[in-house]
Amino acid sequence: MRTIWTEDGGNSVLYIDQTLLPYELRIRTARSWERLVQAIERMEVRGAPLIGVSGAWAAALAVADDPSGDELRRRLEAIASARPTAVNLQWAVKRMSARLSGLEGQERIRCARSEAARMAEEDVAANRSIGRNAARLLRALSEARPGRPLQILTHCNAGWLATVDYGTALSGVYQCSADGIPVHVWADETRPRLQGLLTEWELRMAGVPVTLVADNAGGYLMQRDLVDVVIVGADRIAANGDAANKIGTYLKALAARESGVPFYVAAPFSTIDFSLSRGSGIPIEKRPGGELREIRGVCRSGSVSTLRIAPQQTDAFNPGFDVTPAELVTGFITEKGVLLPSELLKWRPQ
Amino acid sequence: MRTIWTEDGGNSVLYIDQTLLPYELRIRTARSWERLVQAIERMEVRGAPLIGVSGAWAAALAVADDPSGDELRRRLEAIASARPTAVNLQWAVKRMSARLSGLEGQERIRCARSEAARMAEEDVAANRSIGRNAARLLRALSEARPGRPLQILTHCNAGWLATVDYGTALSGVYQCSADGIPVHVWADETRPRLQGLLTEWELRMAGVPVTLVADNAGGYLMQRDLVDVVIVGADRIAANGDAANKIGTYLKALAARESGVPFYVAAPFSTIDFSLSRGSGIPIEKRPGGELREIRGVCRSGSVSTLRIAPQQTDAFNPGFDVTPAELVTGFITEKGVLLPSELLKWRPQ
Repeated sequence: MRTIWTEDGGNSVLYIDQTLLPYELRIRTARSWERLVQAIERMEVRGAPLIGVSGAWAAALAVADDPSGDELRRRLEAIASARPTAVNLQWAVKRMSARLSGLEGQERIRCARSEAARMAEEDVAANRSIGRNAARLLRALSEARPGRPLQILTHCNAGWLATVDYGTALSGVYQCSADGIPVHVWADETRPRLQGLLTEWELRMAGVPVTLVADNAGGYLMQRDLVDVVIVGADRIAANGDAANKIGTYLKALAARESGVPFYVAAPFSTIDFSLSRGSGIPIEKRPGGELREIRGVCRSGSVSTLRIAPQQTDAFNPGFDVTPAELVTGFITEKGVLLPSELLKWRPQ
Repeated sequence: MRTIWTEDGGNSVLYIDQTLLPYELRIRTARSWERLVQAIERMEVRGAPLIGVSGAWAAALAVADDPSGDELRRRLEAIASARPTAVNLQWAVKRMSARLSGLEGQERIRCARSEAARMAEEDVAANRSIGRNAARLLRALSEARPGRPLQILTHCNAGWLATVDYGTALSGVYQCSADGIPVHVWADETRPRLQGLLTEWELRMAGVPVTLVADNAGGYLMQRDLVDVVIVGADRIAANGDAANKIGTYLKALAARESGVPFYVAAPFSTIDFSLSRGSGIPIEKRPGGELREIRGVCRSGSVSTLRIAPQQTDAFNPGFDVTPAELVTGFITEKGVLLPSELLKWRPQ
């Protein structure tokens, strides 16, 4: 199963609504670019690589709706700005835009669909490569620490749900598991949106041992030598190796350095923003405070519902991401290999 | 209003049930020592200083129930071990025990009640002193940073609800507010038990500006220069200055050092365990994993209810505390003054 696909000759884009997981696996259908933009904004689809491919499909729907292109620039801009931090969205829209220039009518529609489909396939291929590169590294760490499953801590969800398939940070975990390397994952709960529940669900469904912990617990785990390696995804990586990822990632990177635990960021090249020399330039999304005041779960009747955990009058501040400085990153696990932060610039496209 | 008091000549101990806050302010009555131990275990009363005084009152109820003392040693041991990390509980029971030895019958009962009452009053007095000592320090920080309210970050709840009155970490905040020093508090949500909601409620009720943030957000706030000082409470401080406090405190201490933000621990001397030379000896309570899988809040009908946020099959690990190494602590704000970690030993009782 993939997170996003098309039917009806490309007129319908289907996706897993991730706001209902792990309680309910519901597939939704977007028949307009506006609906797909809404899905990105509402985080029905989330995860930087998946946001990118969703943006590409939104662009394809926008083109099919009006191939003349008078409106297209405005629409592509609206798609690219649905969420600000993950650079994959802008990258995907830019790539679609470049590919479509000079084309018209049915040819433009056909080309938009095939380019979006190609980006989805490239995402899957990149993630498989990331998984193989990560597995080599994890195998070495495991061999250096025999006698117990390799203890991996991750934050947020960078699994198959965050991509078209396989995932970034979790791709290597799946590969290890397939290769018979014993692993155990500590999944940070990841407040306020609880994406750690997606990680826990994914891994449990795949038979990979996983334990949920509060975001607060990671420092304790590392102090007690219960973590061998931290692997997270990324939403945008600056050319110097500063990496934006889900809020709270930075705290885990600090604890990893303090306890001598290697800290890896797994991401495809589409997440690297070579136009930014440093992480301070990465725009950080401020999400609504209501995400802290209300929570979704399953009530006694079994239905998915929303509970108020903080009073309406409670003032809440909710930045969605933080930036981990390059000096805290042991390496970037990409589809082209494991790179040091200082090596990224060598790969800058000319 | 205090968090705990007696009625009926000491036969009833009344307390605020903190598991229902901030949704409902309900007073419960314990007429037996067993009920008060249950209240400690269930966290109906929580916070190291309040746990200590609750233990003293539980001891007084135990003595009144059977002043002959045949059973008393067993009961005092049960009270002292209701929760393991906060040393105040053992400290209180030991002090009660020492005070009662050699006494009998009605005299023993009277003495137990008056000693528990004295410990409650001493807690209030210590917290007022902590508040005055903290306010001097906060005033200086505020004057060094004119033009905006002093930005204070705190974790968990070390306010009046965590003590008999005034609080430890928040006592100085209340004192500043009374003195007209403009302050603003960032309250960490503090998963899994959400004690940050108690902090938010306390401060909002007192008219102190406060903003709720996810536990994940503190690193971001410090990176962006949005925090001038971190103040937390403690559950047990080793003689070398290693300090156990609510899980996640250590991560904030790391971020504070990284961003050059002073990190203070506010606690009375009853929280210092001079018998432990280092923090590694502090027992860390493992709470039930259900605290991560379920959450309490208010449903649409307005009633307080419990929602399942992670499936029953989800494996969860839930350590309640972590230990912040002494080298990350700028100072301890105590009733005897602000002390460096290296100065604690000078105050060891002979």
